[in-house]
Parts: sequence; structure tokens; C-alpha cells
Amino acid sequence: MSGNRFGTLFQYQSFGESHGPAIGCVVDGVPPRIEIDEEFIQQYLDKRKPGQSRHTTQRKEPDTVEILSGVFEGQTTGTPIGLLIRNQDQKSKDYGEIKDKFRPGHADYTYNEKYGIRDYRGGGRSSARETAMRVAAGAVARKVLESQIGPEVKIRAAVVQIGTHKIDYDHWDWDEVANNPLWCPDPTVVDEWEGYLDTVRKSGSSAGAVIECHASGIPAGLGAPVYDKLDADIAKAMMSINATKAVEIGAGFEAVMFGGEDNADEIQMLDDIAEFQSNNAGGILGGISSGQDVVVRVAFKPTSSILTPVKTIDKDGNNTEIVTKGRHDPCVGIRGAPVVEAMMACVLADHWLRHKAQCL
Amino acid sequence: MSGNRFGTLFQYQSFGESHGPAIGCVVDGVPPRIEIDEEFIQQYLDKRKPGQSRHTTQRKEPDTVEILSGVFEGQTTGTPIGLLIRNQDQKSKDYGEIKDKFRPGHADYTYNEKYGIRDYRGGGRSSARETAMRVAAGAVARKVLESQIGPEVKIRAAVVQIGTHKIDYDHWDWDEVANNPLWCPDPTVVDEWEGYLDTVRKSGSSAGAVIECHASGIPAGLGAPVYDKLDADIAKAMMSINATKAVEIGAGFEAVMFGGEDNADEIQMLDDIAEFQSNNAGGILGGISSGQDVVVRVAFKPTSSILTPVKTIDKDGNNTEIVTKGRHDPCVGIRGAPVVEAMMACVLADHWLRHKAQCL
Amino acid sequence: MSGNRFGTLFQYQSFGESHGPAIGCVVDGVPPRIEIDEEFIQQYLDKRKPGQSRHTTQRKEPDTVEILSGVFEGQTTGTPIGLLIRNQDQKSKDYGEIKDKFRPGHADYTYNEKYGIRDYRGGGRSSARETAMRVAAGAVARKVLESQIGPEVKIRAAVVQIGTHKIDYDHWDWDEVANNPLWCPDPTVVDEWEGYLDTVRKSGSSAGAVIECHASGIPAGLGAPVYDKLDADIAKAMMSINATKAVEIGAGFEAVMFGGEDNADEIQMLDDIAEFQSNNAGGILGGISSGQDVVVRVAFKPTSSILTPVKTIDKDGNNTEIVTKGRHDPCVGIRGAPVVEAMMACVLADHWLRHKAQCL
Amino acid sequence: MSGNRFGTLFQYQSFGESHGPAIGCVVDGVPPRIEIDEEFIQQYLDKRKPGQSRHTTQRKEPDTVEILSGVFEGQTTGTPIGLLIRNQDQKSKDYGEIKDKFRPGHADYTYNEKYGIRDYRGGGRSSARETAMRVAAGAVARKVLESQIGPEVKIRAAVVQIGTHKIDYDHWDWDEVANNPLWCPDPTVVDEWEGYLDTVRKSGSSAGAVIECHASGIPAGLGAPVYDKLDADIAKAMMSINATKAVEIGAGFEAVMFGGEDNADEIQMLDDIAEFQSNNAGGILGGISSGQDVVVRVAFKPTSSILTPVKTIDKDGNNTEIVTKGRHDPCVGIRGAPVVEAMMACVLADHWLRHKAQCL
Repeated sequence: MSGNRFGTLFQYQSFGESHGPAIGCVVDGVPPRIEIDEEFIQQYLDKRKPGQSRHTTQRKEPDTVEILSGVFEGQTTGTPIGLLIRNQDQKSKDYGEIKDKFRPGHADYTYNEKYGIRDYRGGGRSSARETAMRVAAGAVARKVLESQIGPEVKIRAAVVQIGTHKIDYDHWDWDEVANNPLWCPDPTVVDEWEGYLDTVRKSGSSAGAVIECHASGIPAGLGAPVYDKLDADIAKAMMSINATKAVEIGAGFEAVMFGGEDNADEIQMLDDIAEFQSNNAGGILGGISSGQDVVVRVAFKPTSSILTPVKTIDKDGNNTEIVTKGRHDPCVGIRGAPVVEAMMACVLADHWLRHKAQCL
Repeated sequence: MSGNRFGTLFQYQSFGESHGPAIGCVVDGVPPRIEIDEEFIQQYLDKRKPGQSRHTTQRKEPDTVEILSGVFEGQTTGTPIGLLIRNQDQKSKDYGEIKDKFRPGHADYTYNEKYGIRDYRGGGRSSARETAMRVAAGAVARKVLESQIGPEVKIRAAVVQIGTHKIDYDHWDWDEVANNPLWCPDPTVVDEWEGYLDTVRKSGSSAGAVIECHASGIPAGLGAPVYDKLDADIAKAMMSINATKAVEIGAGFEAVMFGGEDNADEIQMLDDIAEFQSNNAGGILGGISSGQDVVVRVAFKPTSSILTPVKTIDKDGNNTEIVTKGRHDPCVGIRGAPVVEAMMACVLADHWLRHKAQCL
Repeated sequence: MSGNRFGTLFQYQSFGESHGPAIGCVVDGVPPRIEIDEEFIQQYLDKRKPGQSRHTTQRKEPDTVEILSGVFEGQTTGTPIGLLIRNQDQKSKDYGEIKDKFRPGHADYTYNEKYGIRDYRGGGRSSARETAMRVAAGAVARKVLESQIGPEVKIRAAVVQIGTHKIDYDHWDWDEVANNPLWCPDPTVVDEWEGYLDTVRKSGSSAGAVIECHASGIPAGLGAPVYDKLDADIAKAMMSINATKAVEIGAGFEAVMFGGEDNADEIQMLDDIAEFQSNNAGGILGGISSGQDVVVRVAFKPTSSILTPVKTIDKDGNNTEIVTKGRHDPCVGIRGAPVVEAMMACVLADHWLRHKAQCL
Repeated sequence: MSGNRFGTLFQYQSFGESHGPAIGCVVDGVPPRIEIDEEFIQQYLDKRKPGQSRHTTQRKEPDTVEILSGVFEGQTTGTPIGLLIRNQDQKSKDYGEIKDKFRPGHADYTYNEKYGIRDYRGGGRSSARETAMRVAAGAVARKVLESQIGPEVKIRAAVVQIGTHKIDYDHWDWDEVANNPLWCPDPTVVDEWEGYLDTVRKSGSSAGAVIECHASGIPAGLGAPVYDKLDADIAKAMMSINATKAVEIGAGFEAVMFGGEDNADEIQMLDDIAEFQSNNAGGILGGISSGQDVVVRVAFKPTSSILTPVKTIDKDGNNTEIVTKGRHDPCVGIRGAPVVEAMMACVLADHWLRHKAQCL
């Protein structure tokens, strides 16, 4: 009820601040007898880890995960899986400016208004560091989906826009995503994007991004109408990620401009299987998966921590300005890709169990 | 857990099918001693009621609400408020085509896949008729906000785009919204929009819409980080409305193209009050309300029930096509405005109570 | 969250006051394609109905249930089942004394303290009239268990003690329970009990009762350790019934006096099936059903509405006394039997779905 | 939903197995700006710690708690409080018998039936070791109650029966509870009880116990009718503790034998304050606290781990018998006292926040 828990049947409770002793989560509701170990989870954490290219923060966070419970002899037991990451990068540094001033675009002001106290070290609980636990829980969710539905389940995200620079969808190649540091599926734009990001970084500014995520191999039937529609839960999951400002399912805002007959995804039988002729719906009808790919696009605002000074106030109510020094991603959206994948996996694992409970 | 309930502390459970005996909801968690009666709720239902202009369906649904419990001598008692609307328009008609064919863009196919049975009459549970209960619950939510926070709370929605036609934001006038049948805040475009909708309707097509909703008078502090962020819960609420495909908070997708320094809403003291210099954030930082207006935009796809034939299959797996006759809104988005307002009110009332529980 | 909802996956939301327009509930999470109709539910309501013998209140409450949604062509559709009972017995009578005085043993004082307002008519929301909805929901729960597990599921309750009068367990005969108005499984004590109750009633006093309920045919595996143990949820369900003061599982308080070796239910193989040699555990180990009969005993306090005057205060803080006239059960425990059965059915249906979601 | 979480607004998620790397919990919903540190929590853990007298297991479990998050500069921040206890006593011992045989009275058989896998080391998740986290969470709950209601809140438990030996209620002295190793409030029976326990231990048997817990200083108004009555939630909390078999509120089973006029707690004004003349209700009417002491009694069965051989089966379905060697409490109920107190504190803190949200 305090907003630190995700999901209903597949669910996890997260905790931890950016510069406290540790961050962690407890993944609960996992079916028993699923093979999982720390290495499997670690590979996804490594994808989110900072410092892997010049386009992300150079902070060193090894983010080594430890399984504390719920796994016995390499298999889940059905009991809660405690996951822990000790914070390594807790320099006892001077938090001076952040301590007393509210950074625009950050949660400093609102945490202070809400709680009357805030752990200002590195953003405390509001830091994107928390998303490491989303990625860890998402790895468990993938295991649930793969073991219960099948290996055909694939959840993949890519960056389709940085600042004003977009991909050409005709060039889309999933295999290219891992070949560049920008999670970009269009190899023809990578050089341009890298140059653009260098410019942004050097100018002390930052850039936004759009992530697109596809889940394939998802059977029809997932989603709980009418308030826990699959798309509603995806929207919530994505909008809960730090720095996100918008979510589209399928054709999204573009659908507004279609006529009804163009927006309709016609259905035809093909070899005894119902096939949709297009996917404007993004794989969801009436809040329930249709068997098509589930498709979502998520907008990340530009990083708020920038070297360009901006006007703000301090905690005593004086006008001032702030420059956020330190090691920040010029485009937080890039490292958002594995988080978007993880949230998609968590939503789907949750609705899979919900579907099983009521309808299977 | 089955998706027919909304909210956590201020919450309601909805039930009912389009052509069953009745629809209704139970609003729970309402603080005691709030004045409310059927008339107050009815005024909001009347705004959503079909048949009020030539641009909405001509069905007659008086939608008269009855309070069954939870109110005593004109005041809430703190016990659940049962609300009931008997369905009046249940002609024993021939549902022939809808009965056997899956309408593209509708939930027919997915309900069938999920449940193995579906009440095909008028869309059953997946009908937008259910949104009447959202509006009723939203009226109660308004009362909670007004009585606990104050009369300065205002929640208002307007249609800012129909098909490819957009308003000019410089012409925005809240007072104009009630002066035209399209919930349009820009009086200079209403004639053009009406003409456009006539064309769409006559051609047997349909149009999408974008609704923008502002909540003002909301204090700082509402929202439960990190998974139940205020924007996350708004996104879910909006995406749970029938026919919605996208949600933006504040600058939304446009923020992607801003530099960090332009996106930052600078803060300055003005007469001892912290004032934000812009509202790209849409009134929410780190998932918590900042005291600025909360701003959301919601995309509605074009009505799926159209007179233009589209290809589909029947329940026996034969290829066929379908024309959806009957009385349908050419642009469901228009009647979406009071529903968007209602969902905003429900999310805010819920987070108000949550904030009160932990922090006040 | 406001306490008017029961269960997690199989769940229902109840509403309504004793003398308001109606009481009702919404049963949600019910699997699709289960045959059910109003008649099936009505038969259980009729068992709880007052006025069936001289030992229960002579009020006339036909309690006719209407299904408002969720059932189509005689089958559940997976959508919420709205159930409604109009209150028939709303005489516009003088509530004088109850209106101003707090009846000892009733919820009058505490509702007033909590909410600052109370619907005093017939006890309002705190009236045992609400238990009709438990019985209705319990009927649906039985259908879930029977259709998903099998017809071997049986949930039966009996009165094993009234005041100081207990049954002889050696005489237990389930078939006798329906043969007397006291739900008594021991035919040898019925006459004595009836005489005792007549005495109690004539003296203006009242009597308590103990109900024992057995659920048989329940497979091993139901229950969610560690906080939602099957016995924990049964205890909560029973303690939520009006007038209950204690709950025992299996040997209950008697187990305190056993040595560990006597309390242990030994296990032995019998024809390839694990058989427990006794059932001190009441069919639950570690919070999970073992396959044995689930056994619970519930204590009902004597009816608080009595003709004997008791001291109390009025709402203005004056000392006074009160006699509760009207038509009251001298022993509310008797009509508690169908309610106990219903709650047991609801808990088991809920845990069945939970077990299915995670482990099947 | 998987049963490892307790509470709704004040809530905690527990994890960990008896012989895994660690046990822990995440306490969420705690109001901000409450002073708390590890020492405060540790003092309650030390009361539960084994090995403090000859009547409890001689295992050495220092149970040192570490706060991982949610506390900053000695105060709660409103974010989740992660608590961790590393398991110290993980000898790599031979679990031989427990590994293959199902111990009667334990959860071995049912965990195996439910999950198809079990961590047999020391009982795994079903071990009473988990109750350490209840005690830790309960310490936080006390802080919530004391800081929000006042220092007058007191939650105290005592052992009132061991085996067939009961206290004399006329000798009750709260101050004596800490003066003997048996949590006994009647100093006149301690010697006799100690002798009895020695006999039980030496004979390889075990004994049950009854714990009585009083919460005083609790204001009227806590409890959420009708399904989350305060007594219902207390019953669930207590019945979720390992080895409990029964729960009574106030007069409990004894109330069955009272006439209505004797059971009624009469109310009279005393110096402008409403005073109840007795407390058969156990401080709860209609599921809501009345302002009197909240009183509950909980039955613990005799320890199931005994040296006396009992018949059972092994996992391959062979008849066999088992003797549970090792270091076990002859009467687990004794160490249940701090756990009962903790659960009471958690229930009350939760209902306090719920009451605040809706009614204050």
C-alpha cells in the first residue's frame, strides 16, 4: 500500500536507498521447481550496469546480487526469494548542494513536502538505482514465463528515438540491438546518434529517449478486465519507472488520426489459425492479450542532473541556482531499456498467474 | 484481483453487463459525514449520457442512479455505498451477427479466448456502458476531495484533438467546454469539428480523439513512490478506459525532444511561496504531486463499431466480414471526457487517503 | 481496505444496512462456465432465514436473491456476479430507544466513536442481517469447489453446545442435523435443548452456542504460508461473523494439555495412500491442508438483545438502562451454522484458486 | 498474495529459511520522522532468542538485526525499512532423517504435497525461526503506536497455562513476568511449572501453553467492519504463528455459558467518561475497539519435535518411525509470548493507520 511493491500474484517488494547499506527486493508468488541461480539474474543486471560505454555514467556499481532465500538446490521452492545488492559506491562524500537545494526535475522538493524528511544522498529512495531491483525481479519473471508458457516467450526492448533523432522502422533488426551501446535496432543511425550524444554531453545538457518493447510468444487470454487490463497494468508499470512521461500501446497517439476501418486489425483464418492482418492494437483487445506481439512505447524525459545551471530554491526558501555535478547519464533512457523489458516481464508473469487461477 | 475493482483506500467494485438486468458499483472507504445524495451523482451521469447531440449515439439510457446503502440522513456513514442503475434499453433484439462473429477492434475475440464463454449482448462486460459506474464513483470521489481538501479542488477535461484536427492552445477557455457538444475548449474550431464529424458519420467511418484533463487545487505530497507513483496510477486509470491507447503526463512525448535545461521546471520563491516557472512535469515529480496542476492527455482510438465492412472470422473459424449496425458514437472520445475526469478524481481521492494514513 | 470485502482471488464485496433499501454483494474471481442460478443460492439463504422455528426470531425476511450480472445462459462468465436482496421488513417504526442509547454488547457505542455518525435502524451495517450476503457468496463458493475439485467436497456445520449443554460426540450423526430446528447432530439431546431454550427465552435472557464445521474432500496443498495459513484465514473468517468470540482448529485448547506424542497425528501408508491415524491438527499442518477433514469450532456469545434491563448511557452522556424489545433470536448461534458453513466455503474456494495459480 | 506478507497499511514482507543464508523482512507504510535504531529492535529480538533458560532450546542464534534502508539520521523516512538477520547456526550437518521422513505435527508432509519440493534443513520456511522477523516488525509497530497515539500504549503478554497447569488470576502481576524464565504472571506457580517442564523434557515429551496478551491505551475506533474486524485480524495474526491452535477474545468460549445479561459489559458515566463495568468483550464491539484493554488468549500445541518415537512414512511411501533429535524447546509456547505481543502490535499499528485514513 506504500507503493514499494509491484504485482499481485507474481509480486515483489523493493527496498533500499541509493547510498544506504544495500538495495534489495523480495520476489513472491513464484511457482515451485523452476531452475534459477544468481548467474542467471546477474546477466540482466550487467546489462543495466553503468559505465559500459561513454554514453552512460562512469560510476562503478558492480551490482552483485545475492539470493538469500526461496531457492534450494538450484530450484525455486515456492517461498519468497530474497535478493540483495550491497551498495559499493558509498563514498563518504560531501553532498553539500544536493543536501540543501531542491534539484528541478528531481523528486527532492516533493519528497520533502510529502515526508518532511528526505535522504538526500544520491537521491535516496527516488534514485534510479532502485531500478536494479526491477531488473532482478524481471529476470525471475522471465523464468516464470519460460517455464510455464514455453521458450517461445521473448521480451525485447530497443531505443527508437533519442532527442529528435528517430530510427527508420524499415531497418529494424533485433540482432543489432546488442551490437551497439545505444540499444538501437537500426544500424544505419548509430553513428549519428553517438555523435549527437557526445555533443549533448559536452554541452552540459541532456537528451530524452523513446523505448519500444515487444513481447512475443504470449498466449491469448492474459489481462483482467476491466480495471486491471493488460495495457493498463503495462502503462502503470512503465510510468512507474524513473523519468518516464508517456506510454503508448500499439498505434498509440497515431490511432487518433486513423479512420475506424484503418485502425481495425482484421482477422482471417490461416491454416486453421486466426491471424490478425495488422497490429494497431498492440496485441491487446478489451484489456486481454490477443496472441499477437504486445507492443509498448515509453517516453523518457532528458536527464534532470545537468551541468547547465538552473534556478531553484533551497530548503530555507531562498532563491538560488544549482548545477548537478557528478557522474550522470546524458540520456537516462538508454539504460531504461533493460528496465522496460523487466517491467514487461513482471506484468506478464503476474497476469499469467492470474489467468491460470481463474480460467485454466 | 479479477480486475473489476479500482483503487486501494478510496475504492470501488463495479459489476454489470451492457444488456443484463443492471449495472452497479460499491464505493468503499469513503470518510463519514460527507453530504451526498442521488442528485449530486446524477448530474455527472447526465453529462456522460448518450443522445445529447447528433455526435453521440442516439440510444436512450436514462441511467438513473439509486443509492442502496452507506448514506443516512443525507450523509455518508463510512460504510460501503451501493449504487445501482437498472438497464432500461434491453430490447429483446436479434444479436445475430455479433453473436457469432468477432468484431475487429472489440473484445469479442479475446473474451472468448480467455473465458471460453461471452455475453455477446451489446458487448456484455466489455461495453463502454460500464463507464457509467466510473462516473458515479468519480462523483463520490469529488465529494471526498472537496470535503477533505477544500472547494479549490477542480477536475476538468476537454477534447483537444479529433482525428487530425487540433485546438489552438492559445484559445483555451475552460468556460467554453460546456458551450458546445464536443467538450472543446477552443471556440474557434467547433464549427469545423462538427462538420468533420458529420462527414465521418455519414461515410460510415469513425474518428479518434485526445482528451486533456487538469486537476487543480491538489496539495503537494500525493503519490506513493515508487510503484504507485501518482502518474503511474493515473496512467493505469486512463488506460483502463475503453478505447484508450496512450497516456501522457505533462510534456509527455514532447519532453523527449527537449534538452534537460529546457525540460526542467525551475523553482523560485514568490511571496514566500515556492512557484514553478513552467509545468513540463505535469504537476508530478518522483511520482508525488508538487502542488502544480496535474495534467494528463489521453488518446482514444476511433470507434470500432462502424458501418464500413471489415474482414473477420466467426466463432466456427470461417472467414467472413462484418458491418456493425446500430446506434454508435462516431467518436467515442467525446463521451470519454467525463470518464477521464471521473478516473482522475478517483485516483486523487485514493492517494489523498493514502497520504493521510502515512504522512498526516 | 475498508473491511467490507472478503477473500483475495475468490472474493466478494458486501454492502447494505439492516433497514436500508437493500443489501447485496459482488462476487468476483469466479471461474467461467460454472452452472449456477438464483434457485441454487436461494436454498442456502432459506436455511439462514429467520422465523423457521420458535427458537429463532419471528421477523419475516423472505430474502429473495436476484442475480444482476456475471451469469449468462445459466453459466458464470468470469465477470463479477452482482447479488441483491431488497429489504422487505422496513416498517417505519419508532427506533426511539436504540436511536439514543448504546446497547451493551452491540456495536452502537463503537460505531459512534469510530464514525461520529451511525445508522441506528436495526443496527445498520453492524446488524447480523449482513450475514445473508455471506451465505449467498458461500453458495457460489460451493459451486466453485464442486466444479473444480469434485462432488466429494462437503462442508457441513452443526451446533455442538448451547449454553452449558453439550452433545455427546459418540452420538454424532450428520443426517440428524436437518431433522431438528437446532442444527444438532446428536438426536438424544434435542428435547433437552429445546426445553432449555424455551426457559431462556421466557426469562428474557439468551444463550451462547458452539458451532463445529467439517470440510471433507479437500485435497492436500491449500493454504499460503506463512501469514495466510489456511487456519489463519479460517480463524479470521469465523471471527468476522457477528457475535463470535473464539475459534479452535482441530483439538484447539485441548491440545495444550496433550503431550507431544499424543498430539502428533501419526502417518501410515494404507493401500498406497498416506493415512493420518488421528486428526488433532484439524486437517491443517504448517498452514496447509493435509487432505484430512478440515475441522473448526466457533464460539458464539449469547444474544445481546435481551428483555432483561442492563445499565448503559445515552448519546448525551447520561446514565440510563435499556431493554431491547422486538423479535430477537434467544440464541444467535443457531442461525450461525449456515454462516459458518458459508465462510468455510469462501475460504476454501479462495485458497483453491491461490493454490492453482502458484502450484498447479 | 503468497502469504508471506502481513498487514495492509502498516505491513511487512518476510522471507528466509531456517538454514539458508539469512532471514529478513521489509516493513512498509511506516510514517516518517519516527526515531528508531537497531538497538531498539534488538531488545525485542533478545527476548525471543533461544538459550536463555534451561526450558528453551540451547541453540545459539545471536539474531543480530541490521537495518538496510528506510532510516536516515536515526529517523524513519517513510520508505521501506529493510531488516536482515544472517543465519549463524548453519552447521553443515547431516539432515538425514528429516530429509527423507515426514515429521508428524510438522509441515513436512504438506509442504511436500503443495510445492513438490521442500527445503528440509531445519524445517526451511516452516521453521519457527521465521518468527524472529515478526518480533522485529512488531518492534517497529510499537514505535508507530507510541509516536502516533502516545506512550500510554502498552502491549504485554504472559503465559497463563502450561500443559494442565494454570495460573491463579488473582495473583496476576505484570511485573513478575520478567522475573522468571516462563513469562508467568503468577509468582506462586513458577516453581511448580519449572519442575513440570523438567519432567516433560527428561521424559522426551513436550507441553503446550496458553498465552494471554493485553493491549492497553488503545483508543476507541480501531477496526474495519465487517470482514476486517479488529478481533478477526487479531485471530488471523495469532493463528498464523507456528503451533497455535485456538484463539479467544475476551471471555471467549466461556461466554457461551453466560446468559446475555451476564455477558453484557454495562456502561456507566464516571467523571464524564464512559466506563465499561466489565470486559467480557475483550475490548472489541462490532469489530471496533471500545477503549478498554484488548484481550486475547492463544493456545500453543505441544512441541512436535520430541524424542519419543512416533510412526510416520518416508518420502518413498514406506512406513517407518521417527525420533526428532536435536535442540528443541520442550514447550514452544513460552517463546511464543514475545511473538504474540509482536503480532498484536502489528495488527494495532495497521488498524491505527486505517482508522486515520478514513475517519481522522
